[in-house]
Formats: sequence, C-alpha cells, structure tokens
Amino acid sequence: MLHRERLKPPDYVYPADEWKLIEKRFYPRFLEQMETIFSTANGYLGMRGNADEGTPVYERGTFINGFHETWPIVYGEEAYGFARIGQTMVSVPESKIIRLYVDDEPLYLPTANLIEFERVLDMKAGTMDREVLWETPAGKRVSIKSRRLVSFQHRHLAAILYQVTVENGEAPVVISSELVNIRDEKRSGVDPRRAKGFAHRVLLPKLSYNKDLRVVAGYQTSNSRMTLGCGIEHAIETDCSFSYKSKSSDDGGKVVFSIDAQPGKPVQLTKYMTYHTSRSAPPEELCERAERTLDRAATHGFERILAGQQQYLEDFWRRSDIQIEADPDKTPRRIEEVQQVVRWNLFQLLQASGRAEGAGVPVKGLTGNGYEGHYFWDTEIYVLPFLIYTAPRIARNLLKFRYSMLDKARQRARELNQRGALFPWRTISGEEASAYYAAGTAQYHINADIMYALKKYVNATGDKEFLYREGAEMLVETARLWSDLGFYSERKGGKFCIHGVTGPDEYNTVVDNNTFTNLMARENLWYAAETVNWLAKEQPARLRELVDRTDLDLSEVGEWERAADLMYIPFDETRGINPQDDSFLEKEVWDFENTPADKYPLLLHHHPLVIYRHRVIKQADMVLAMFLLGDEFSLEQKKRNFDYYDKLTTGDSSLSVGIQSIIAAELGYMEKAREYSRYALLMDLADIGGNVSHGCHIASTGAVWMVCVYGFGGMRDYDGILSFNPRLPDMALRLRFPLTVRGQVLHVDVGKESVTYSLRQGDGLVIQHEHEEIRLSPVAPVVVRTYSRPNYQCGERPAVPNMR
Amino acid sequence: MLHRERLKPPDYVYPADEWKLIEKRFYPRFLEQMETIFSTANGYLGMRGNADEGTPVYERGTFINGFHETWPIVYGEEAYGFARIGQTMVSVPESKIIRLYVDDEPLYLPTANLIEFERVLDMKAGTMDREVLWETPAGKRVSIKSRRLVSFQHRHLAAILYQVTVENGEAPVVISSELVNIRDEKRSGVDPRRAKGFAHRVLLPKLSYNKDLRVVAGYQTSNSRMTLGCGIEHAIETDCSFSYKSKSSDDGGKVVFSIDAQPGKPVQLTKYMTYHTSRSAPPEELCERAERTLDRAATHGFERILAGQQQYLEDFWRRSDIQIEADPDKTPRRIEEVQQVVRWNLFQLLQASGRAEGAGVPVKGLTGNGYEGHYFWDTEIYVLPFLIYTAPRIARNLLKFRYSMLDKARQRARELNQRGALFPWRTISGEEASAYYAAGTAQYHINADIMYALKKYVNATGDKEFLYREGAEMLVETARLWSDLGFYSERKGGKFCIHGVTGPDEYNTVVDNNTFTNLMARENLWYAAETVNWLAKEQPARLRELVDRTDLDLSEVGEWERAADLMYIPFDETRGINPQDDSFLEKEVWDFENTPADKYPLLLHHHPLVIYRHRVIKQADMVLAMFLLGDEFSLEQKKRNFDYYDKLTTGDSSLSVGIQSIIAAELGYMEKAREYSRYALLMDLADIGGNVSHGCHIASTGAVWMVCVYGFGGMRDYDGILSFNPRLPDMALRLRFPLTVRGQVLHVDVGKESVTYSLRQGDGLVIQHEHEEIRLSPVAPVVVRTYSRPNYQCGERPAVPNMR
Repeated sequence: MLHRERLKPPDYVYPADEWKLIEKRFYPRFLEQMETIFSTANGYLGMRGNADEGTPVYERGTFINGFHETWPIVYGEEAYGFARIGQTMVSVPESKIIRLYVDDEPLYLPTANLIEFERVLDMKAGTMDREVLWETPAGKRVSIKSRRLVSFQHRHLAAILYQVTVENGEAPVVISSELVNIRDEKRSGVDPRRAKGFAHRVLLPKLSYNKDLRVVAGYQTSNSRMTLGCGIEHAIETDCSFSYKSKSSDDGGKVVFSIDAQPGKPVQLTKYMTYHTSRSAPPEELCERAERTLDRAATHGFERILAGQQQYLEDFWRRSDIQIEADPDKTPRRIEEVQQVVRWNLFQLLQASGRAEGAGVPVKGLTGNGYEGHYFWDTEIYVLPFLIYTAPRIARNLLKFRYSMLDKARQRARELNQRGALFPWRTISGEEASAYYAAGTAQYHINADIMYALKKYVNATGDKEFLYREGAEMLVETARLWSDLGFYSERKGGKFCIHGVTGPDEYNTVVDNNTFTNLMARENLWYAAETVNWLAKEQPARLRELVDRTDLDLSEVGEWERAADLMYIPFDETRGINPQDDSFLEKEVWDFENTPADKYPLLLHHHPLVIYRHRVIKQADMVLAMFLLGDEFSLEQKKRNFDYYDKLTTGDSSLSVGIQSIIAAELGYMEKAREYSRYALLMDLADIGGNVSHGCHIASTGAVWMVCVYGFGGMRDYDGILSFNPRLPDMALRLRFPLTVRGQVLHVDVGKESVTYSLRQGDGLVIQHEHEEIRLSPVAPVVVRTYSRPNYQCGERPAVPNMR
Repeated sequence: MLHRERLKPPDYVYPADEWKLIEKRFYPRFLEQMETIFSTANGYLGMRGNADEGTPVYERGTFINGFHETWPIVYGEEAYGFARIGQTMVSVPESKIIRLYVDDEPLYLPTANLIEFERVLDMKAGTMDREVLWETPAGKRVSIKSRRLVSFQHRHLAAILYQVTVENGEAPVVISSELVNIRDEKRSGVDPRRAKGFAHRVLLPKLSYNKDLRVVAGYQTSNSRMTLGCGIEHAIETDCSFSYKSKSSDDGGKVVFSIDAQPGKPVQLTKYMTYHTSRSAPPEELCERAERTLDRAATHGFERILAGQQQYLEDFWRRSDIQIEADPDKTPRRIEEVQQVVRWNLFQLLQASGRAEGAGVPVKGLTGNGYEGHYFWDTEIYVLPFLIYTAPRIARNLLKFRYSMLDKARQRARELNQRGALFPWRTISGEEASAYYAAGTAQYHINADIMYALKKYVNATGDKEFLYREGAEMLVETARLWSDLGFYSERKGGKFCIHGVTGPDEYNTVVDNNTFTNLMARENLWYAAETVNWLAKEQPARLRELVDRTDLDLSEVGEWERAADLMYIPFDETRGINPQDDSFLEKEVWDFENTPADKYPLLLHHHPLVIYRHRVIKQADMVLAMFLLGDEFSLEQKKRNFDYYDKLTTGDSSLSVGIQSIIAAELGYMEKAREYSRYALLMDLADIGGNVSHGCHIASTGAVWMVCVYGFGGMRDYDGILSFNPRLPDMALRLRFPLTVRGQVLHVDVGKESVTYSLRQGDGLVIQHEHEEIRLSPVAPVVVRTYSRPNYQCGERPAVPNMR
C-alpha cells in the first residue's frame, strides 16, 4: 500500500520515444527535477543537467565519485563510539558553463522568448542535446544547438559541442566559456536526506593558469586534503570573424570569444573538460594530467569522442537492454513510453557505475549529492544484481572496493566492542559516517548484504579466484562479527539471538532478532564456513595465506556453523507469519486511517519515537528477506507474510516498491505487482519520492532491472541455480532481456504463452524453467510453454501447488 | 554492586569537625574537586570555591540560577521533533577576585611558600573562610585572612572580608579587587556530562561605569537576550596609608588599592558583590537595582550581613539537621566525621534551593554547570522530599515553577503527536533541551515524577489550595498524555501498555512497558481522577475553573481510571520478579567479570548500542519504583526484585546508591545498606562519580537525607500516612531528625533499642510505628521499643513476617 502519489510532471513533459527522453518546452517549475533527470555521467565524473548558461539553477553540480570533504560530526549530546568524521561528496569547479550574449543581451531561459526549445537525453548516443531558437528583444532569431557528453571511453573527459547561428541578421555574439569554482552554501532544514552545505571554503585554490584557449586550475579540499586538477580546452570553427581573450584566477578562469556573427553563418565551439583527482598527488601533478587529457581530446576531436561514446553504449545495450512490448489493448501507454522509462532507469545504472573504478556507487550516482553522496547497502543489494548479470567486471571492481575498506571495518568493529569487521553503514572514505546510529550504525546487516552480493557474484561468474582471496578474508571477518555479536538465549530455547540492531526497515530501530538480519547473518555464517572448509580440503596453501591474514583458528568455523544452525528465526504461530522482530507484533498499529497524505513520508512529520512505537513499516524488510532468501520460505509462508506486511508498508523509502512488486508477482498478485512496478519505474521520472531534485535513486533504478528480470521474468538464482518462472503483467505482450552467466550470454524472451531461451554466447548452460531442467546449447534456442496460472487478487489464496 | 571506587581525597583532606569542612593544606591536585566542594551559594547566586586570587583555576564560575545562553542544537542527522534550543547556564562576570601583590610579587598559591594554609567551609555560619601565612620570596611574612559569604537573607548579595597583615616588615601592598567578564572557551570531548563551552561572546557589554570604590556593569546574552546588572562596592579600614584607583571597561572594572603596609598593622577590605538578572528589564534598570543593593550592603556593613546569615542558618539547621552518633567500637570513623559528611550534604541542598525563587534546582545546584545546569527530575524525586519535610514553602515554589512551564509542556506534547502536556526531560527555559532523545525526550516518566512530588507535597503539607489550582491543571494534562500515549494491547490480555519510552535507567532505552513508568503513570492517572472527582463532588466552582482552563470533558476521567486500572505491570512467573521492561529478561547479561574497573562508567567506554543490547543497569529503576510506590509490593516481592537487580546495577549514575541503600535497609540487608549509604554520603566528598569537578550531585545530596530518614529512619509516607520502621546500621548508636508535617514539627530520635517521637510544634499528630498507630501530642514524647529484627546478608531469606 503506497500512501501517496506525487506524479508531478505531466505526460507531456516526456513525449514517447523508446531511446530518448525528451523535454519539449522549458518548464521553470520542473527545473529542480530536470537537473537530475537530464544528468550525464560515466560513474567517475557526473554533471547535473544544469542549463549550459549556468543559470537558472536549483542545485549546481559536477561531481567526481569519491571526491569529498570531511567535517567533524557535532552531536548535541556526545557519546562514546559515535561516528566522528562526516563526509560529503562536493561539487568540483563547474566547467560546463557556456554563457551566450547576443547584442550584449544574455540568454536566460526563464525570460527569453523561446520560439523553439527541445532537450533530449539520448540514451543510445550517450549525449544530452539541446536545441533552442531564441528571439532576442531586438528581434534577432538565434539558433543554439548544444550537445553534451561525459565520456565513457575516457573517464576523465567530458565535451560540449556548442553551435550558434544568428539566422536573420548581423549581431555581435559573445560566448563566455567558463571553469568556475562556485562556493557552496550552508543549508538548513530538517530533511536528513539532503546534503549538508558548508560555511567554509571547501576548495582551496592551489594554482591556475591560462594559455591560448585553455584554462587549468588545481585545488585542494580544506579538511579531507584531497587534490584536484581540472581544465578546459576549446576549438572554434566559423566563417565569421572573431577574437578571444582568456584569463584565470583563484576561482578558475574563462575564455571569452567575441564574434561578428553574419546571418546564417554558424559559429561552432567545441569545449573539452577534464578532471583528475587524488588523495596524494599534488595539484600540480594533476594539472599536468589534465593537460594531457585535453591535448589528446583536442587531437581526437569531438566526432571521434562521440563515436567512442556510441560504441560503448552499443556494447552496454547489447549486454543490458530490456525490451518490453506493451499490449495496446490493455494500457493507454504507448510501447515507446514504457520502453523509454525502462531504458532511462538502466541508463542511470550505467551512468552511476560504468567507470566507477576504485570507488563505490553513490546513493544518487553522480546526479546529486543527496545523502551526502554516500555509499550504502544500495550498491550490494540493489545495483550489483544488475551488474553481476550484465557487467561482471564492474561488479567485481565494486566488491574489490569494499575489500579495500576491510581494515577500517576491522577498526570500527573494535570501537563497537566486537571481534571481526563491521562495514560502515554509510561512507565514502571507509569510515562510518552515520550520525544517527538508530538508522545507521545499528544496521549491522550491511555486513551480510555485502557477503550476499559476494556469493551471488561468485555463483554467477564462477570467479573462485576472487572468492578465495578477497572474498574469504571478508567472510572470515564478517562471520566473526556475527558470531561475537549474538548469543545463545536460554529464553529462546538455546537459539542464537542477535539483539539491538536495525533491519532494512528504518521505522523499527534497535530491535531484537530482526528476522531479515538473522536470516542474512545465517547465510553469511554458512557461506564463510563453507568457503573455509573447502579451502581446508582443497587448497591448503590458500588456507595458510588466509590464516596468515586473519589469524583464523579453525575452531572458529565450528562456532560459526553452530551459530548459523541454531539461528533464531522469529515465527508467530497464531498468525502463521514471521514477525519482523521480537517486539513488532506487540506494537500498536499505526493509525493509517487518520493520517492524511501530506503527512507522508512519516519521517518528515513525526518524531522518531512516535514512529518507532507503532506498527508501521518504511520499507520492505521481511518481504525483502523473502526475495533474497526465497528458497527458505514456502510459497504459502510467503503469501502469509506478504499479506500481513503489505498493508503496513508506507513505501516511504524508494527501496521498497520494487521488492514488493517482485514478491507480488511471485505470489500471482499481478495487479499489485504491476502497480508497484509502475511506482518503481517512475520513482524518479515522476518524482514519486518527492526528492529527485537531490539526485536519482540509483537503488530504485536497480530495482527496476530486478522487477523486470526477477519479477516478471521470474528469475531466481539461489545457490547459483538459475531458474525462471516468468509471468507477464496483463498489459505486456513480451519481455526480453540478456544475461551474462559464467561468461556465456543467455537471452530470455518471454511471451504470453511461451518463453524462448537462447544461448547467444557460450557453449552450454543448464537452467530451470518452472522447476524443469533445461540444457541450453548454442545450436538452437529452446522454446517452452509457460505454465498457465491464474492471477490473484491480493488477499485471495493462490491455488498454485506447493513450489518449495 | 558498585563496580569501582574512586575515593580520591585521602582522609587528611578533611579533618574531622562536625560543623566545618576543613582543608589543611593547599593541594593543587585536588583543585578541581575543591572548587566545587567549597562552593558558596544561596539557590539564586552561587560561587565556586575558586581561590580569591582568581588563579589557579580549573573552572571559574559564578552562576545565577536560570541565567542561561541558548544555542541551536545541531544534529549530524536531523529529524522531525528533535529539540531545537540548547540551553546552558553560563557564568556571569566574576566579582569574587581579589588579587594581592606584596613587593609587587603576586600571591599565587601553587608556587607561594605557604607557611600556613587553612580553608574552612563553615556550615553553621554559612561562610568560606581562608587563612594563609605566606612568606614572600623577599622573606616578608604576610597573613591573609578572608571570609566569603553568599547571603541567604539578601539573595542578590555576596560579600568578602579580606584582611592582609605584613607581619615582619614594611612593604608596598597592592590589592586589586575586580569585576571581570572572562570569556568562555569552547570545549571538546565525549563526556556528555560536562557543560558546553561557547565560541561566541556570550555576554555582550551594554554599559559599565565606576565611581569611588564602586564598579557597575550591565550585560545582555547574545542569543537568549537575558539581561544582567552587576556591581562591586568596597570599604577599606587600616592604619596604614593608602590610595586607590578605580576603572571600568567593557569587560568590567576594578578598584586597585595601593598600601604602604606597616609591620603588624592589618589592612581590612570589605567587598560587596551583587547581581540582578531579568528576561525583560533593560541592563540600565538592573544596574540601578545593583546600586541599591550595594548602597544597602555598605550601610549595613559586613557584620550585620554575617549575623543575618548565621540566623538564617540557625533556622535551617533547626528544621533540617540530622544528627548521627557513630559507635566508636564499631567504626574507625569518628563521630565528627560522619556528622560532617551528613551536614555537608544537607548544606548543599540548602545552597542549591534556599532562595531559588521563580527558578528550579539545577542538577549541580550553583556549584558548576555540568549537564548545562539543567533542571531534571532530580528536583522532584530527590530534592523535594527533603524540602517538603523541612521547608514546605520552598517545595511549593518549585512545584509552582513547574506549573509555570505547563504551556510549553502542552506545546511539546503536540510536537510529539500527543494530547495533554509533556514536561521537558531537561530544561532551563521550559523548552525541551535534550539533544539525545533515547536518554532524554523518551523519559516520559518526568510527567509522573512531578505529579508524584505534587501528591507527596499535598499530603505532607495539607495544601489543598495548591492542589486545586495549579495541581489539578497539571494533573489533567499529564493524565491526558498517559491516556493518549498508551494503548490496550490484545497480546497483553487487553491491558494498558506504554511503549517506546525510557525509564530512569538510561542503560535500557526506548523500551516497552518499563515497569517504573507504568507504575508511576498509573499513580498519576489515579491521582488525577481522584482529584477531579473530588472537585466535581465538593467544589463545583473550582471544577468549572479547571474545565475552563483545560477544556476537560468529564468522560476523560473515566478513561484515565480505566487505563490505570488496566495498567500492564510486567511480571515474570519463573523468576518471581518484575522485569524492568518487556525485553529486559531477553537480553544477554553484561560480562561483568571481564569488565575492568577503568571501563566504568560504561557510558564513557562503550557505544550506546553495546550497552543497550545487554542486561546491565545504570541506576535503580525497579528498585526506585519499590521505594516510591513501596506499598504496591509485598516485602517478599521487594526482596526478590532487589536480589535480582542489585547485581546488575553498575551505579554509574549518582542517583542510584541512595535508593539501593534505602531498600536494602527495608529488607534488612544492613551491611549492604551501610555500604551504599557510604557511597551516597561520599559521592561528592570522595568524588565517587569522578566528576565532582563539574559540580555537586544535588540529587545525591537529597538522597543522603532520604537514606537517613527513609532508609535508617524507616519512614514511609504512602498516601499521607506517616509510618516508621527504624533500623540503625551497626556502626550507629543514635539517629535524630526533625520533620515538618502539616505545619507541625516532629522530632524522631532513634536509639539502638527504642525510638522517641516528640511533637515540638503543633497540637497533635498520628503516626505509625512498626504498624502500630501512635497518637502524638505536644504534652510529652512517646518512647517505643524497636522491634528486634535480625540483620540479613544479601541473598538470605529474611524471616520478617509479611509486612504488606
């Protein structure tokens, strides 16, 4: 049950197009949303969809993944062990600004007389294109075409092609192309989701210079001492006469072109932008790197960069595209619309992760710094499934990045009086940055989430090498933590209990025996034991290495197995459900009836104590457990749990609806599955969460992939066995998606009555379709009929035979 | 079980004297403790026991009750309803500084050659006296005698008599008497108990001037906009020739006396100091008031002020003194020592509350601003019992002060989505100032604590007038809150449950059905219903007034009664105990064995999550309930609970040992009662809590009175029936104390074998002694034999007949 709708942008904002997101008019009132939605990024460098002219602006932003400022977290009341170092991904100097003056009048979109306006996010080309026809106050008609791209091929590079033509007369035209360090502002307000602003000057200028058409500048952050070198370079092409001047200062620099424009003669400016960052190299060194990038870009030219971009994207879509055919009789939506929305979400996944090498996936990608641009469990649970099955190398990089934080996680466990390692709930640098432990540090499940993703990665790729080195070490330390954290409770019949933690649902915090946490911890413990046991048997040399790195005593493994085998899993006999935690069923039910829509999300309108003492859920918790560890529940059990929790779930978190949709689909609640999938698909494009202005919900874009593949595609991958129980929603005729599995490429093509499995790459793969084994070979696709199941209304009892 | 001792000051610091606390040497290493312990205050104005010379200083401090600065509470992560306005009692300009120079050499205690040194806190005279014989580097012997007092008679006034004599030669002597606004410093560190420092200038100078021997200055606080006028005036008397200069500036001013001292001829300086504060009057006006106070003081002279002080104290001790005779055969302590320690605690109670008119009792009195100088429940539960039975007028003032906060409490309840009123957990201004809700806002029991004190006050004084006006209104609003906060739980058999609150014990926070809270809320609800019902029956006009002020619907009263009657009181059949809350018995027991002494208090060495997930107690919680509402438990039940909880209690709070001692005494665990009473008595004097440097633990001083009267005196006052079951500890021969009851004065004199009850004032009182009614008349005392009960070791089963 989602308690509010907030489908802000009306249909006409996005005309239907299956490869493009199109804005047909300039809507000042959607400025803040569109800045996010039209972002361009490559996982390393990201630019919000700010206007070329620099204004109007809701929130400026060019971000480098991992580039952050630190600040001492201040508490009204201090306590031992509270996280101390705040971290915020900060905007680097703006390089994308190109100001235009015709007859000395600036182009300013909100007041300009725009005869034509169109902005396109081209998801096939990987560009943001804008075409404007502007009539100046003096009656000049000026055509401005710009194309912006952040290169996937060259992750330090972005480029803009900017073309101006005065169509109906002569006019002096000035183009001011800038690189400018705009100071941040301190923000206030109670919304914990928005990033902190800074009162101090974050980027200290270290050097800056200009030569010819180039400006270069180096900076260092005030507190975190990170360094940055950035620069812009230009090429201009026109038959009109022109001159230029460039200058630089502490705040950056600019190149200003003055052109005597002739009617119909275009002026074409190419701008190359680059950023290099480091934790150790001096800014001078980074400026040299920046110059080398600019040299190369100028040599290559825009067209070659664009071609590289298109090639990268072609490869991406080949590996990742999901195609959906809507049934025109069953939905008012056109095929292109659904396809557009799905692709936009996948495109965001790429933009958030593509070149995120040596860094994580910020919760908003590089489209904004909501939640301070931190890395959360979102990466492992919501983004990695997509990457594991479409770009396993990137998935591996991200897991490797977690591994690089292991020492800090060990230290953090010590601060919390535990053995092993505790990964930070939110972080950039590896230090815990959660300033509110109840919905932060207490989410110990982060450990198990990462290990869950590790297992999925290893199973799907067969990358045992990674498991035995980095994986095993993380498994040992996380298992140690669980084993030390919990205890055997006499009152629970000697079962292993875990107290005082917060599960995924942040409306019930610091609870005992959160079922999700206990299940995931059990999985973590089992996998750790299994891995070490296997090493002991088969790879004694590797085991010795592991013991060397972890001081592992093999008797510990027995402790893990015992804790896992005796793990307490809450179950309520009366209701036949798994309570979310020990006290969940004791609570007073939230008064949904008397909560008006404008009081959601509850967290912005109620004191945490008020929320915590009631039975109300922010986001899928038990339901998420039933997805991640679905083979540990019978279908009947899932149904009882889903029926119970669904009506208590506000969906105040963007992480919820996608998961709810998947389980609804599994249970045959197809109308509900479709409804929730719609919320997931439109989370950002329709601003369902109400805060897309702070950046895209990358976890939700990952959930969109999961809704298609796990939900309607019915895929499951428990213990590495790939199975499918597809079930299309009524409004869809066909669903197609590719999967990369152990180096092979499988195409799944789900129709209304049959499914076709084709092995496009690889030499043989065994899968299951509706519990029957299918052996695929590259010779020919396998076509199977879908098991004809009726659809249920929520609350009905499904007549499906026991599928456990 | 107290897990550590920290009896820092050795015996020789305080030589035995039953009316004086004496420091025989200057110990730099005890500087920070002694500044607190030698404080002088009158409940309105307080001065830390800083050296006259101004240095050395650990923490300077002159405080005016209620005079505070505000600051925006910053949260690492914001949330709705969090307290916003921080409040800190700040030091006002220092007026007590008198610097002395002989031969231009300053007297600086740590390096001076002190031939003699003695400092005395004279609890009969109400003065701090110091005598120093100083040999200067040049060999001059200088005698310095000073006497400092903060007047109880004139609450805006303090005075110092300062006498200097160069004994063995001539010397130029300079005395610089100052009034100086010393800027605060920002502090850091994780100790949440210490007050915040400020980076900004707190006191903005508004005016300052000097004339003759007088300096006057006016200030306003930066944020809270409170105003202050203060001044100093002098009189000098000597046969030596002298001159003086005075000056003033933004930071205050000074009068500097230059004297040609002759051998053996004393120079006597009298300094008068005054402070006036306001929330509205301009500083100019307050400076005029200050001048009037100084005029009057100068006219009266020091001796008359001193005489007034002594008279006030004589009256105080007559109403409040507790006399204990130690048995020289049973204790190494001398009678005077025990008496000294008891009196010092009582004296602090007076100093914290005596003239606290229109304000509360800060948690550290006026001896320091630990915990920001806030008012907590300490006032109602720990201090008011003493005041109710010794100075009912002051008790009334304090309850009236709570009443003045009722509107803000109503508003706070709204912010927390509740009807009625919720008093702030900690505050100066009436706004909730707790920046950590788990051990702050969540302590809803504050409401019931205040109502509990109201009932005790009304019963002991018979002041129905107060009950029907202020009392009833508070009762209605607090009852409303409870009735709205809880709910009838099916899972608890339809009982009324209160979830998501924190009880007194701050090591178990945000729990369900904290037994203490439920019991106290029930008492609150019953008393509210009873009061309204009585008004309805007997005082319809007053009821109409009440309805007018509260919009009371009489049907609400039925709801309160129902909630109270059906209140859920946790009980564990297996152990036969009342669990502290619903989840308490589910927890893993704290590993006391492996917790070294230096890891206490736990809160300074463990993350809250670590503490909260274990079964460990900071302070008496169930045990406190058994004291406050002892008639709701059988003795057997009390014993089972005490035995169970005692070993889990760290005593990390100073509020604990006194209560543990009282219940131990009731159960006949006399050795334990004595041990805990020793901790209570020495909490500050032996720095048991380790932070007496931040100020006295006023609640603990109140607990000392309770230990004597309720503990060893065996007094109980359930529902206004005064009963006694005295039981002296082995080491005591006799215990005597006076009580003011409904305007009468009762003296209780407990000996080893008999008790004497004498009515010293009043015309008749009915009490109970060991369950037998005794009718007292002014004619003659009643002597009764004490019931000879054996003493038990903790863990034994007492053979006492059922006393319920």
